[in-house]
Amino acid sequence: MQALSPTDSAFLWMETRNQPMHVAGLNLYTPPTGAGADYVTNLLAQWGKHLSAHAPFNLRPVLRMGLWHWEEDREFELDYHLRHLALPEPGRIRELLVMVSRLHGNLVDRSRPLWEAYVIEGLPDGRFATYIKIHHALVDGVTGARMMARGLSTTATEQKPPLWAQDLQSRAAARDKPGPSGLLHQLMDLAKAGRDILPGVGSGLRDILGISADGGAAALPFQAPPSPFNVEISGSRRFAAQSYSLQRLKAIGAASGATVNDVTLAICAGALRKYLLAQKKLPRKPLIAMVPVSLHGEAEAGGNQVTLLLANLATHLADPVARLQAIVHSTGDAKLRLSTMPRLQKMAHGMMTVAPLGPAMVTGSAGRRPVFNVVISNVPGPTETLFLNGARLDEVYPVSIVTHYLALNITISGYGDRLGFGYTACRRSVPALQRMLDYTDESLAELEAALRAAVGTPTPAPAPASKKTARKRAPAKKTAQPTASGPVAASRPRTRAAKRTEPS
Amino acid sequence: MQALSPTDSAFLWMETRNQPMHVAGLNLYTPPTGAGADYVTNLLAQWGKHLSAHAPFNLRPVLRMGLWHWEEDREFELDYHLRHLALPEPGRIRELLVMVSRLHGNLVDRSRPLWEAYVIEGLPDGRFATYIKIHHALVDGVTGARMMARGLSTTATEQKPPLWAQDLQSRAAARDKPGPSGLLHQLMDLAKAGRDILPGVGSGLRDILGISADGGAAALPFQAPPSPFNVEISGSRRFAAQSYSLQRLKAIGAASGATVNDVTLAICAGALRKYLLAQKKLPRKPLIAMVPVSLHGEAEAGGNQVTLLLANLATHLADPVARLQAIVHSTGDAKLRLSTMPRLQKMAHGMMTVAPLGPAMVTGSAGRRPVFNVVISNVPGPTETLFLNGARLDEVYPVSIVTHYLALNITISGYGDRLGFGYTACRRSVPALQRMLDYTDESLAELEAALRAAVGTPTPAPAPASKKTARKRAPAKKTAQPTASGPVAASRPRTRAAKRTEPS
Repeated sequence: MQALSPTDSAFLWMETRNQPMHVAGLNLYTPPTGAGADYVTNLLAQWGKHLSAHAPFNLRPVLRMGLWHWEEDREFELDYHLRHLALPEPGRIRELLVMVSRLHGNLVDRSRPLWEAYVIEGLPDGRFATYIKIHHALVDGVTGARMMARGLSTTATEQKPPLWAQDLQSRAAARDKPGPSGLLHQLMDLAKAGRDILPGVGSGLRDILGISADGGAAALPFQAPPSPFNVEISGSRRFAAQSYSLQRLKAIGAASGATVNDVTLAICAGALRKYLLAQKKLPRKPLIAMVPVSLHGEAEAGGNQVTLLLANLATHLADPVARLQAIVHSTGDAKLRLSTMPRLQKMAHGMMTVAPLGPAMVTGSAGRRPVFNVVISNVPGPTETLFLNGARLDEVYPVSIVTHYLALNITISGYGDRLGFGYTACRRSVPALQRMLDYTDESLAELEAALRAAVGTPTPAPAPASKKTARKRAPAKKTAQPTASGPVAASRPRTRAAKRTEPS
Repeated sequence: MQALSPTDSAFLWMETRNQPMHVAGLNLYTPPTGAGADYVTNLLAQWGKHLSAHAPFNLRPVLRMGLWHWEEDREFELDYHLRHLALPEPGRIRELLVMVSRLHGNLVDRSRPLWEAYVIEGLPDGRFATYIKIHHALVDGVTGARMMARGLSTTATEQKPPLWAQDLQSRAAARDKPGPSGLLHQLMDLAKAGRDILPGVGSGLRDILGISADGGAAALPFQAPPSPFNVEISGSRRFAAQSYSLQRLKAIGAASGATVNDVTLAICAGALRKYLLAQKKLPRKPLIAMVPVSLHGEAEAGGNQVTLLLANLATHLADPVARLQAIVHSTGDAKLRLSTMPRLQKMAHGMMTVAPLGPAMVTGSAGRRPVFNVVISNVPGPTETLFLNGARLDEVYPVSIVTHYLALNITISGYGDRLGFGYTACRRSVPALQRMLDYTDESLAELEAALRAAVGTPTPAPAPASKKTARKRAPAKKTAQPTASGPVAASRPRTRAAKRTEPS
C-alpha cells in the first residue's frame, strides 16, 4: 500500500458530485479496409481476455488514518471498467458528443480503480470511438494522453494488448519528476510552500504582485472581470469538439509574427467574444485566460521549465488583428516577466493560479473576484499516425475538468497535422456550448480574412472542405460532408504539432 | 417555493456517491404492428415537443437556511432529462440489464429536477425499453410506479403526452395522506415520535421488544445473522430481472395454504439460500427479510393500515416445503402480533426497520448486528394492458435503492398476470447477482415439484416455455427463445395481480 502525495490526494478531497476530478480522451477511429460489421465486437472480445490490470489501472484509493493510499484491487473486475456502447440513430458526431457529455458528468466509483474505458460503435461508415476516463488522482492530463498514445501502435499491422494490460507504470511515474507533466502538482507544491513563506497571504501576495504592476500588457491577478464562466457549477457537463489543420494556424502565425500558441488563443478569444455577445454578457474589460506554458523557446517541445501565464484575451476589441496583436503582446510580456522574475515571485504567480481549485485556497476571494476567467491549455500529442489493432486513429480530443468558478475549459490536443479543440463546460452555467464551434470557425475565418486584407500575406483562404469538425450540429449521417466520414481519413499525420504547453 | 417535509429531505441528506437515493422503472414495449424502424426516433421527436414540465417534474431542490425547498426550474431543459440510447450488438436483454445497471449507479444532478427518462432501442424485433429514474425525495416507489402507469394509455389508439407533460401532481400529493404509499415517510415520522417518547432508545427499545419475545415464530429484531448483504456498499450497481406467471404462484398458494406474498417470499428464500451456498456464506441462522405489508386481509388491495413485518426466511432449511411452511408461520405470527400490538409497540417495531436508512439512526448497532438482512417488497401494479402511443407494454420491472448494510433489494411489481422480480444490488458486495435469476427459477421449480410430491396437488409443472425472463444470460438475439422475443407478446394481462404490499 502506497500513500498518495498530498497533491494527488487533493483531487480526491476536492471532488464532489458537481465537481468530478477526472480527465478523459475521446479518440475516433476508422477500421481497416475490409473490416466486417463485427469489428468492434471482436475488438471487445479480444480486450476482454485481458482480465488483469497493470499499475496504475489496478489501484484503488483507500483511506487509512485520514490519508489516501493506493492499494491493489484484489477483486479487479474488467467487465466493470470496459464498456461497450452504441450510438442511437442517426449516429452522427452530434450523438457521440451528447453521449460523451453525459458520461463525463458521472463520478467514478472509488471502490475500484479510478478509470472507465468505453468503446462506442455506430458512427457512419463503421467508424467507432473510444472514451477513456481516468481520475486526476491517478494520472494528470499529459500523462494520461501520453499513456493512451503509447498504448497504440505505430503500424497498421502491430497488435498491442489494451491499455490496462500494458506495463506503462514507468511512464506514469514520470510525472513525479520535474518535467512538462504534473503542472498542477508543481503548482500545488508551490502553493504549499507559499503558505509557509507568506503568512499574511492575502495582502502579502498583493504586495509581491504589486512589484510587477509596471503598466505592462501582461495580465495580472485581480484584473479579470466577472463573467458567466466564473460561477458555481452544476453536476452536468457539455462537451463540444472540433479540429483544425495545424498548417492553417501556422500560416496565420507566419503572417502576423505570432506563435501557434498565440494564434490558438486568438481564435479562442474571438469565439469567446462572439459567445458572450450572443449571451449579452460580454464584460467591458477583456477576459483573462490561464495558459499553462513552457518557458523554453518556441522551437523546443517539452522541457522542464514549465509555468503558466495569464493572457489578456483582448475580448473587448472587435478587430481580430488588433486582438491577436494584444494577445501576442500580453503573452510576450508575461513570458519576459516570468523569465526575469525571482523565485519568490514565480511561486506567488503560480499560487494565484491554484486558487480556482478551491476558491478560498489562497485569498478566499476567487469566487467574487475571478483571478482569471478561463483555462486554455495545449496538450502535447503524438505526431505519427497511430493504430489500434489495425484501425487508424483519426482524431484526438481531450475532455477536461471544470470547477466551481471555472465553468469552461478549452483544451487543445495535437495529433499529426491537426489540432483538436475540446470544450468542456458546466451545462447549466455555459448554455448552448455547441455554438462555440460555429464561433470558433468564424473567429478563425475572420482572422484569416483580416490578415489577408491588412497585410496582403499569402494566408490561405478558409477551406471548409478540408476542415474536419466533430460537432453537435453535424450534418446527417452518410452524407458527403466532411464532418462524419472525414477527409482526415485521407490525410496522414506527418508534421510536428505546434508548440506544446502544459495542461492542468 | 415549498419546503420539503423532513422525511423527503432525509433522502437528500442521506444520499452519497455510494448510496444514491433514486428509484426507477424499467418497462419493455412492443411497437404496434407495421411500425417502422424509426418508431423510437419518431416517439422521441414527438416527446421532444413537450418542452415544459408539470410538477413534480419541474421542481429542483434548493437549500435555504439549512432546509431543502422545491423551486421551479426556470431554465428547465427537456433535452437534459430525455435521453435516447441504443443497445450495442447483439442487443439482448443481457445488454439492456448491463446498461440499466450502469445508469442506476449514477447520481442525478441536483441543479435540475430530479429525474431522467431514457428510451432505449435496439432490442430484437424492434422492441424497446424505457428506464425512468426519479429521486425518492420527489416521489416514493409506489407513487412513481402509479404515476408511470397513469401516464400510459389503456387502448392502443390513445395518444397521451409524455409523463412530465401530464398533470399528475394530485396523485403525487396523495402520498402525504395516510395510505398505502409513503411507508417510509410514515416510518420516519414514527421514528421521530419514538425518539421523543423513548429517551434511552437503545435499552428502551430492547425492553419494549422484549415483551414480544414469547417464543413465537415471528422474526424479532436483533435476530438476523451477519450476512454478505449487510456490509458497506460501493457506488456500482447490478440489476437483474425476471418475470413469472401469477397463476403459477397462485397454484402453489392453493396447494399449500399460503398467500401469494408468502409464496413470493419462499421463492426468494430458496434463491437466496442457493446463492449463499454457492458463495460458501450461508449463515447457520435463517435470513430475516423486511417485508412491507398491509394489515388488511388478503382479499383487500391497498388500505391505510400499512406497516411492515420481519419475516423469517428459513434459509437454514433445505426442504422447500418446510421452508414455505416456516415462512407462512412467521408472517402469520407477525401479522397477528402486529394486529394485537398496542400503538407503542407498533411504533417501536416500525422504528427498528428505519435503522438501515442510517445505520446509527436508532441504536447505532445496525451495522454490526443487522436488524434484518434483505428487503423484499411488492409494488402494486396495473392489471390492465397498457400502451405507449400504440406500443404495448410487455413487462414492468422496479429498480430500487440499496443502502449501506442492505446491499440487496428485491422488489416485485405486478402487471397483468405477471410478476416482475427486480433484483438491485451493490455490484461489489453482491457479486454475480445475475445468478440469482437461475436460482429463482430453480427455487420455484423445486417448490412446485416438492408440493406435487408431498401433497399430490394439481400444481402445474414448471413451464419454461411460458416463462418470460429478462436476464443477464439470455440466449442470443433472434432465436426462438422466450427471453428476447417473449411469448408474453401473446398473453394479454387480464387477471388481478397478487396481494399488494408496500415498497420502501
